[in-house]
Amino acid sequence: MAQALDGVRVLDFTQLLQGPYATQMLGDLGADVIKVERTGKGDIHRSMTFLNRWAPEGESPCFLAWNRNKRSLALDLKTSAAQEVITRLARKADVLVENFRPGVMDRLGFGYETLREINPQLIYCSATGWGADGPYVDRPGQDLLVQGMGGAMWASGRADDPPIPLGTALCDQLGAMHIVYGVLAALYHRQRGGGGQRIEVNLLSSLIAFQMQDFFVLHNLGQGFPRPASGIGHPGFGAPFGVYRTSDGYISVAMNPWSKFVSVLEAADLMQYDDPRVLFDRRDEIFEKIESIISCKPTQHWMSVMLEADLWVAPVKRLEEVADDPQVRHLNMFVEIEHPRAGRLKVTNIPIQFSSTPGRVHRPPPLVGQHTRELLADYGFTEEQIRDMFASGAVTADTDEVQT
Amino acid sequence: MAQALDGVRVLDFTQLLQGPYATQMLGDLGADVIKVERTGKGDIHRSMTFLNRWAPEGESPCFLAWNRNKRSLALDLKTSAAQEVITRLARKADVLVENFRPGVMDRLGFGYETLREINPQLIYCSATGWGADGPYVDRPGQDLLVQGMGGAMWASGRADDPPIPLGTALCDQLGAMHIVYGVLAALYHRQRGGGGQRIEVNLLSSLIAFQMQDFFVLHNLGQGFPRPASGIGHPGFGAPFGVYRTSDGYISVAMNPWSKFVSVLEAADLMQYDDPRVLFDRRDEIFEKIESIISCKPTQHWMSVMLEADLWVAPVKRLEEVADDPQVRHLNMFVEIEHPRAGRLKVTNIPIQFSSTPGRVHRPPPLVGQHTRELLADYGFTEEQIRDMFASGAVTADTDEVQT
Repeated sequence: MAQALDGVRVLDFTQLLQGPYATQMLGDLGADVIKVERTGKGDIHRSMTFLNRWAPEGESPCFLAWNRNKRSLALDLKTSAAQEVITRLARKADVLVENFRPGVMDRLGFGYETLREINPQLIYCSATGWGADGPYVDRPGQDLLVQGMGGAMWASGRADDPPIPLGTALCDQLGAMHIVYGVLAALYHRQRGGGGQRIEVNLLSSLIAFQMQDFFVLHNLGQGFPRPASGIGHPGFGAPFGVYRTSDGYISVAMNPWSKFVSVLEAADLMQYDDPRVLFDRRDEIFEKIESIISCKPTQHWMSVMLEADLWVAPVKRLEEVADDPQVRHLNMFVEIEHPRAGRLKVTNIPIQFSSTPGRVHRPPPLVGQHTRELLADYGFTEEQIRDMFASGAVTADTDEVQT
Repeated sequence: MAQALDGVRVLDFTQLLQGPYATQMLGDLGADVIKVERTGKGDIHRSMTFLNRWAPEGESPCFLAWNRNKRSLALDLKTSAAQEVITRLARKADVLVENFRPGVMDRLGFGYETLREINPQLIYCSATGWGADGPYVDRPGQDLLVQGMGGAMWASGRADDPPIPLGTALCDQLGAMHIVYGVLAALYHRQRGGGGQRIEVNLLSSLIAFQMQDFFVLHNLGQGFPRPASGIGHPGFGAPFGVYRTSDGYISVAMNPWSKFVSVLEAADLMQYDDPRVLFDRRDEIFEKIESIISCKPTQHWMSVMLEADLWVAPVKRLEEVADDPQVRHLNMFVEIEHPRAGRLKVTNIPIQFSSTPGRVHRPPPLVGQHTRELLADYGFTEEQIRDMFASGAVTADTDEVQT
């Protein structure tokens, strides 16, 4: 079956998370993603992990998570051979994505102005932490740092908590989604004759735009956005919106008509709070009263009586429980792939259904330079030239165990 | 200047957050978004707010945050007039986005199979909470509920905390980004001759894909993902990655070489922990030791000595402080618009820079049916037909104060 981005060639100079997730999203829909990695060690992410543990054969789970559907070219960008290789690749590329610190691509000779000369149709996307210029241009830009700078850490948790970062790479992952948003819009424009262009995405702007509603309230209602003292689920909402302990777990309760909610709790005295102002102003006191009732019975009880009453409720699941959820299984959100070294891996599937151009997980994450030889040949380098590049160390290929 | 999505007609049946944010992202890049709202009251979000406060003239900040760059058509979808209006609009639309519960569009007569007959080039995107079918198809799907079901609430905070929702509409906003990802890819495919198609996006799959790395670790390293007892910033990381109290605020500290970090702290005894396994296994004890040092001096002190040493550090800002940050000002992330009723509003700017097709905030969020008359005329309805539709109540327009 066709894929939406079939034939789109992406020249991918990114590493770590933001860029690789973005190019993976393009690859998932059919783009031909060529990952240009450092010779030898490759993407820095390959040397990082979580829990101080590694996937089989010392592979990095962080790298493996974000690099399927790509081919790897291991190239020393500082060599003269690299100038020729990148020139050839850029000439035929539709999209280039890079997330070096600002200025690095220029210094390497692969800046936008240089490559647009070679290929005016190129869509050239630079992704940074804080932006391509400005007062923080030389500061390190990284997910946790941006979460803190963008205000997000003060939005979660309770009034007395310290700032709480989200336990996933919120900003990197949002930055990736913004790269995809910009690149696909630019590709569409180009396809209608608009030519190539340069796009700039950064983590800080991505996080701010993501919190658009929260900033809107803050800037236009003339009032701060204080975290509740209790488990109310958002600084802007009143009771009962929140997360409640049951006798054996937790449930989330969203916006619900108060009288219907109170009737399910069988707590008629809570009707004294039946006023939106009171539900907001006294939300913490009300939360405690609700929780004292909900905590007496198990999750399954509340799920059935609340769903029966058409209330908005769901159990809170641990990450470990998600894959076995019946709806998640129905959605087929996890699939297996075979990695040349790490073996069978369970990975996340494409989250969107397309009726005529479905996404596919068709290549495992590559070894460093696994496709160096194949790509150089694809782009017209002779056997001799390729041999010379390997001999000089301009390119490498970690392929011993997979090529036959 | 041209915009990337100039001329793309989006027929927008969405309300609340997920859909409107998505269509706003399309409108920000130039698409002509026609928001089809209920007659009279319009989008449900118009009657919801935060903090139990409202923008001037009772306008909803939630609605105002997600509906700029759109025109509003207030139409009673159950009338026969609506059949004719939607048929005409759908015939010329490039994209349709809807986020009713599964089955509603079919019952209204605007299901995919019906509209593709009228316009085979249409890209028809349905957005739901849990998916278009499956065991939870009849359950309410909403942001907080999905945060809990997708495991995200157990990833943030400390070991002893209850599950912590992110204090922004994480899943709705991610769902929006996935709509944009799918729609733009499908538009590109169509522009190359691939025709229209149906796309399905849901909150649960979007959140799972967003946590791809966390699920990868969980499923392939054979170990759970326990939250740290201290302020370490991610369940998978060791010290010093985390958020530390200073004498006057908080700083975030990302991945840093331990010896360099310890030397900046002037705490040579911490070198006893210089081993990745120890930094992970004893992360909470190490966190406390680091915080006992960092909490003695102000944020500004640590920022200057850590930046000087090229460490990855940033201050943690409150939402209220973000707009005044020098880099945020440099990025021009907040702009003002004039709303016909609520007056001057400060809104979030486009987070991506395009060199040749910049995004623009060019229309304030509309009043309910503000463009009903204009749109019906655009689509060829006669004055008499329009008058009849108003007379029968099939359409409405809240325009008294803005039309002259």
